[in-house]
Amino acid sequence: MSYAQSTTAEDHAVADLIQFLKFPSVSTDPAHNADTDQCADWLVTKLTGIGLAAEKHPTPGHPVVVARNQHKAGLPTVMIYGHYDVQPADPLDLWQTPPFEPRIENGVIYARGSTDNKGQILAHIHGVQQALAEGELPVNLIFLIEGEEEIGSVNLGAFLEANRDALKCDIIAISDTGMVAKGHPTFTYGLRGIAAAELRVTGPSVDLHSGIYGGAVANPATALAQLLATLHDKQGRVAIEGFYDEVRDLAEWEREAAAKLPGTDADLLSLSGSPAVYGEEGYTSTERRTARPTAEINGFGSGYQGEGSKTIIPSKAMAKLTFRLVPDQNPKRILERAENHLRKHLPPGVELSVHCGHSGEPYLCDPHSTAGQAAQRALQATFGAEVALIREGGSIPIVQTFKDVLGVETLLLGLALPDCRAHSPNENFPLENFHAGAKMSRHL
Amino acid sequence: MSYAQSTTAEDHAVADLIQFLKFPSVSTDPAHNADTDQCADWLVTKLTGIGLAAEKHPTPGHPVVVARNQHKAGLPTVMIYGHYDVQPADPLDLWQTPPFEPRIENGVIYARGSTDNKGQILAHIHGVQQALAEGELPVNLIFLIEGEEEIGSVNLGAFLEANRDALKCDIIAISDTGMVAKGHPTFTYGLRGIAAAELRVTGPSVDLHSGIYGGAVANPATALAQLLATLHDKQGRVAIEGFYDEVRDLAEWEREAAAKLPGTDADLLSLSGSPAVYGEEGYTSTERRTARPTAEINGFGSGYQGEGSKTIIPSKAMAKLTFRLVPDQNPKRILERAENHLRKHLPPGVELSVHCGHSGEPYLCDPHSTAGQAAQRALQATFGAEVALIREGGSIPIVQTFKDVLGVETLLLGLALPDCRAHSPNENFPLENFHAGAKMSRHL
Repeated sequence: MSYAQSTTAEDHAVADLIQFLKFPSVSTDPAHNADTDQCADWLVTKLTGIGLAAEKHPTPGHPVVVARNQHKAGLPTVMIYGHYDVQPADPLDLWQTPPFEPRIENGVIYARGSTDNKGQILAHIHGVQQALAEGELPVNLIFLIEGEEEIGSVNLGAFLEANRDALKCDIIAISDTGMVAKGHPTFTYGLRGIAAAELRVTGPSVDLHSGIYGGAVANPATALAQLLATLHDKQGRVAIEGFYDEVRDLAEWEREAAAKLPGTDADLLSLSGSPAVYGEEGYTSTERRTARPTAEINGFGSGYQGEGSKTIIPSKAMAKLTFRLVPDQNPKRILERAENHLRKHLPPGVELSVHCGHSGEPYLCDPHSTAGQAAQRALQATFGAEVALIREGGSIPIVQTFKDVLGVETLLLGLALPDCRAHSPNENFPLENFHAGAKMSRHL
Repeated sequence: MSYAQSTTAEDHAVADLIQFLKFPSVSTDPAHNADTDQCADWLVTKLTGIGLAAEKHPTPGHPVVVARNQHKAGLPTVMIYGHYDVQPADPLDLWQTPPFEPRIENGVIYARGSTDNKGQILAHIHGVQQALAEGELPVNLIFLIEGEEEIGSVNLGAFLEANRDALKCDIIAISDTGMVAKGHPTFTYGLRGIAAAELRVTGPSVDLHSGIYGGAVANPATALAQLLATLHDKQGRVAIEGFYDEVRDLAEWEREAAAKLPGTDADLLSLSGSPAVYGEEGYTSTERRTARPTAEINGFGSGYQGEGSKTIIPSKAMAKLTFRLVPDQNPKRILERAENHLRKHLPPGVELSVHCGHSGEPYLCDPHSTAGQAAQRALQATFGAEVALIREGGSIPIVQTFKDVLGVETLLLGLALPDCRAHSPNENFPLENFHAGAKMSRHL
C-alpha cells in the first residue's frame, strides 16, 4: 500500500472513530439506553459496510453485536471481543472538553471510551477492513462486541451459552488492556477479578435535629464510617476473615518479570496525581496493583452534602464497594465473607443491608503456551520491540467466562497507554496506537 | 375580649402565619437570598402594621429586623428575640406536602419553619398586637429578629456590638426551645453550644480506575472513613484528647429533675424512628441529649453515588461535622483539639484540610434567679400547670452572646412540642401553641 493510500485509509479510520465516540453509550445509566442502542446500530452498519455479516442481538440488557466473514472448513476460527459501552463521564467539570465531543490534539484523541474500549476495538475492525480490501481473510473471523462490559457483562454469559455453536472458535483476542509504556508491546497473562457490593446503614426514619437527638441515638454516618474502617488493618491488608485464604502467591519468575518492567513509583505518582504510594506491606507497587487483591470504596454518601451546614443526624448512609480479586479467589465466596465480616462489626443502634452487585472471576493463563507465543510474535512484528509479560489490575470477567463456556483461551493484546485515563476525566488514546492496532490485527 | 373577637383575631393570626411560612428563607443557601430578604421585608411591614417602629438593618449576610414601641423612662425594657431564617427543606421527597406551602390538618400547621422559629416568634408578635390593640404596653419593648440563626448568627454579634446602646435592655425572652410534653409549660435553663467543621481528604488528582491503580495508592474515601472512626470509642464517648476536660458534671438536683420529666426511651424511639437508643455509657437518654457533649457527622460524600456502580478510586472525600458542647467547653478550643486529633490520626497517602464553620458557646443560667422565677410564673399562668425545668440539647449561640455583649440574661420560654420535627421533613406546630404563645407574651 502506498503512503498516500495509507494516509487516506487512516483519515477515514479517524473519522469513523470520532463518530463512534460521539455516542454516550453509558451502560450503567438507564437514561442513556437509547444512546447505547444507537451505538450498537452504528457498529452493525460499520461492520456490514466492510463486508461482514453483522447482526444486533437483543439481551435483557444492552444488545450484543456479532459479525463474521464467510467461514470455511479447515481454517482456524479467531474471535475478536470488545465492548461499545463506556463508563459514566462524571465529574464533568474536570473534562477539558466535553467527553462525547472527541478532540484531537498532538496526535491524541480525547473522549470517554477513546481507550476503553472503542478506540481499541475499532482498530481491529479497521485492520480487518484493510485486509478484506486486499482479498479474503486467512482465518474464520467472529467479532463479538457487547454493551455491558462496564456493568459486569451481566447478560453475556447467557448469550454465550445460548449461542455456543455459532460462537465456536479456537482462540479469542481482546484489546482492552494496557501497554507497559509507549512503544513496548505487552502481553497480559493475568487479570484481577471483581466483586461489587453496596452497603446501606439506616437509623432514624428521617433526618433528625442533631441538637435535640444528638447523643441519644446512633448516627448512621458514624456507624458506616466505623464499619468501613474495619475493612483494612494498619498494614494496608484487607481485614476480612479468610480474605486471603485462596490467594495464589506470585511465582519467583513473575516477581522477576514485574521487577524488570519500565515504570517507577515516581511514574505512578505522576500518572495518578496521588500524593504518595501506599499499599500492602511486602509488595512492590506493580505487584500491589496487579497480583494482590483489594477492597476499595468507590463512593459513599450520607446526610447533607450541599453548601454550608445542616445540623442533622442523617437517617441513612450508603457506600459502594468493589473487591479486586486474584487467582484463586472466588467472587461469591469473598462477598459472603465480606457480608459476615460487616454484620459482625456493625456498630450498635443501626441496621445494615448488603446488596451484592456484579462480579467476575480472576484470570491467569500460561504465556509460554503455543497461542501465547503466537500472540507475542504478532506483537513483536507490529512494534519491532521485545514483548513485556504482565498481569493487569483491571478486570475483564468475560475472559474467565470464555474459558468456562467456550473452552477457549484469550489473548490480551493491549493498546492502552499508562496515561490513558480510562474511567477518569480526559480519557485519551494516541492515534498512533489506533493505527498500530489495525496493523497488529492484520499480523495476527 | 369576647369569644367572637378572639376567634377573628386568631383567624387573622393564622392567615399571617401562612404568609410568613411561604417564604423559603433558607439562610445557608445563596440561591434563596432574595426569598430571605423578602421575608425580612414582610416582617417589617407586619411590625409596622401593629404600631411599632420597625426597620430592616443590612449586615454582610442576611438583614436583622428591629422593632420597638415608644420607650419611656422608668419602665423595664424587654427584648424579644427570634429568627426568620429556616433550615434547608431537603430531602423534599419525604414531605407529605411541599415545605413552603403550609397545610393545616387537625389544628396543626405543617411547613418548614412552622416551629423553628416563625410560628414561635409570630406568636409573640400577635401577643403584642393584641396588647397594643387594648392600649399602651407596660414595658419598653424591642423585637430583634435575625436571618442567620440557622447558620450560627454569624453577623449578629457585630450588630449587637455596633448597636449596644439602642439595644440596651433588662431581660431577653426567646421562644425557640421545646416543651417537655403537650400542656407542660417548660423553662429551659441550659443549652448546648456548637462548633462546626468540614473535613476534606484528597488523594489522586482525578478519580482513578480502581483496577489499574487499586492497591498501590491510598483511597481518600477509605482514609476518611478510618479518620471518622477515630472520633468515638467503643463506649460511645468522643475520643478526642481533652474533649471532656472542661465538661461540668451534672448537679445532683439536675439529674433528679431530669429523671422526673415525662418522656421515656420508648417515646424517644417513636419520635425519632430510630431502631434503638444508643449513647455514652453512664447517662440516661435525657442527659445524653441535653447535658453531655457529642461529635456528630451531619453528612459525608465521596466518589460515585449514582445508580449502579463505577469502579473508581475517588479523588477526594468530605465530611461535615458538628460538635454539641456543654458548659464549660469552649468551641474554639474544641475545634483546635479536634483538628490536632484528626491530623494525628490521618492515615498515610492522603492529604487533609479542616475548615472550621460556625460556633456558639453553651449556656447555663440559674432557674432560681428573680427573672427566672418571673418567667416560670408567666408560664404557669398561661398553661395552668407546673413548670418543668430542663436543659436543651440544641444550640442558640446568641444567648451567650447576649450575656457577653449586652450583659443580660435570657429567658427561654419554649412552645415547640417533642414531635415538631424541627430540621426534619414535615416540620409542624399546633395552632393551640401558637395562640398560647400570644397569651404568654401578654402575661410576660
